[in-house]
Amino acid sequence: MNTSVSRPGDGPFTERTPRVVAARALTRRAGRDKAGRFLVEGAQAVREALAHGRVHELFAAVPLPDDLAALAADAGVRVSPVTERAAAGLSETVTPQGLVAVCDLVAVPLAEALRGTPRLVAVLVGVADPGNAGTVIRVADAAGADAVILAGHTVDPHNGKCVRASTGSLFHLPIARSASVPDVLAACRAAGLELVGADGHATADLDQASPTGPAAWVFGSEAHGLSDDVRAALDRSLRVPIYGSAESLNLATAAAVCLYATAWRQRA
Amino acid sequence: MNTSVSRPGDGPFTERTPRVVAARALTRRAGRDKAGRFLVEGAQAVREALAHGRVHELFAAVPLPDDLAALAADAGVRVSPVTERAAAGLSETVTPQGLVAVCDLVAVPLAEALRGTPRLVAVLVGVADPGNAGTVIRVADAAGADAVILAGHTVDPHNGKCVRASTGSLFHLPIARSASVPDVLAACRAAGLELVGADGHATADLDQASPTGPAAWVFGSEAHGLSDDVRAALDRSLRVPIYGSAESLNLATAAAVCLYATAWRQRA
Repeated sequence: MNTSVSRPGDGPFTERTPRVVAARALTRRAGRDKAGRFLVEGAQAVREALAHGRVHELFAAVPLPDDLAALAADAGVRVSPVTERAAAGLSETVTPQGLVAVCDLVAVPLAEALRGTPRLVAVLVGVADPGNAGTVIRVADAAGADAVILAGHTVDPHNGKCVRASTGSLFHLPIARSASVPDVLAACRAAGLELVGADGHATADLDQASPTGPAAWVFGSEAHGLSDDVRAALDRSLRVPIYGSAESLNLATAAAVCLYATAWRQRA
Repeated sequence: MNTSVSRPGDGPFTERTPRVVAARALTRRAGRDKAGRFLVEGAQAVREALAHGRVHELFAAVPLPDDLAALAADAGVRVSPVTERAAAGLSETVTPQGLVAVCDLVAVPLAEALRGTPRLVAVLVGVADPGNAGTVIRVADAAGADAVILAGHTVDPHNGKCVRASTGSLFHLPIARSASVPDVLAACRAAGLELVGADGHATADLDQASPTGPAAWVFGSEAHGLSDDVRAALDRSLRVPIYGSAESLNLATAAAVCLYATAWRQRA
């Protein structure tokens, strides 16, 4: 018998239960920053969060998969049954999975994300779409990046859609955020990284001039790319060559091509 | 005065006007296949469709941008004012742009898509998500692919979300679809293409063994990848190496890395 789940004499938490109301505030950035916590939804992501020791408590409108129940018990994480409606109120998906974890924020200070001798870092500047940001975090993780840094007016990595798109990668590598783009670029340079912008208007092609040493790839917003100010502060910019008639690549696919091209050159 | 736009004595078309009702049937695959037409939405995509001579007629709830009006006039395309509600009924987006073109389907027969001596082709097998399919079409276009082929139970490329995600690339390169995966693979092989599967479970890494000659990359579904049957019918499979802790890449980013890696090797 799992005593942390059974609550004799009580029904499941509802959307009016104070702990659920408090958790619901975490669906907004201000609430997350204030509490220092965020929400992670769905069995796969919750499993990653538990494995990385980030979970504070767990709300479940469905039976926990056995391995999750064991992970939660091992970690001493409180599991509270909630109504489907309460779970839906904590969800940002169209089809809630009925399983939501309250986690400690993952973002670390800039200096911590860049400590040691990083070789490959992804910097997002002004990226507004949380799904794009999460997909880039996943790609950066896959390509072996040492950190992802969200600079300027970039979406909060703890946003529900970003968390989901990262499919667990949010927990795999250091994530830092800073409102100051110059601070981020200076910190990357101080860490020994060449600053390389991904820029569809650059004159040099990625395949001809991919970095071979330690590099921070800097990606701009979906709509506007890199600003002139940011571009001027970089060591250089490269474009993913377009061999067909497409006007451009989207952010995540461009990031995938840039990060892998550099990962391969660094390993060659 | 643009006589094709002014309709003295009439108001704009409503959602009950027969031509709008007929166009609305094109939001469903059965309606598209029956009529041989599909819908293209938003100024950028409509511009591409006009430039490629695919537009049959245009519904506008907003003033046409000058260049679009000129393109439509040059092409002799009828432009009909519609109410916002009528335009919204033809839209598959949350924020309709008020501009929808009725276009001829772009899909061509398999043999036509593969004619000549193709060097790089993308084959999607069982891909269900239209946004993913459209993004892969865009990436294939960018990487200079000669064709994209949608095989088996794969989403209709004329689906509104696929059209949107392709950002015009749907009009840039031949797109074919076939319910028979064996037919598609046989046609690719007959066209001189090596059949290479993208498979996270493959033992050979993309960077070590990317095709250098003419190749068809075969991508499986988001959820299940390539089936054993398909895998057995290929010449070989490669994986995008995962250098970090991510479990996998998503379909579009994996396709971007595979297609660009091969485009570069073929050009080296």
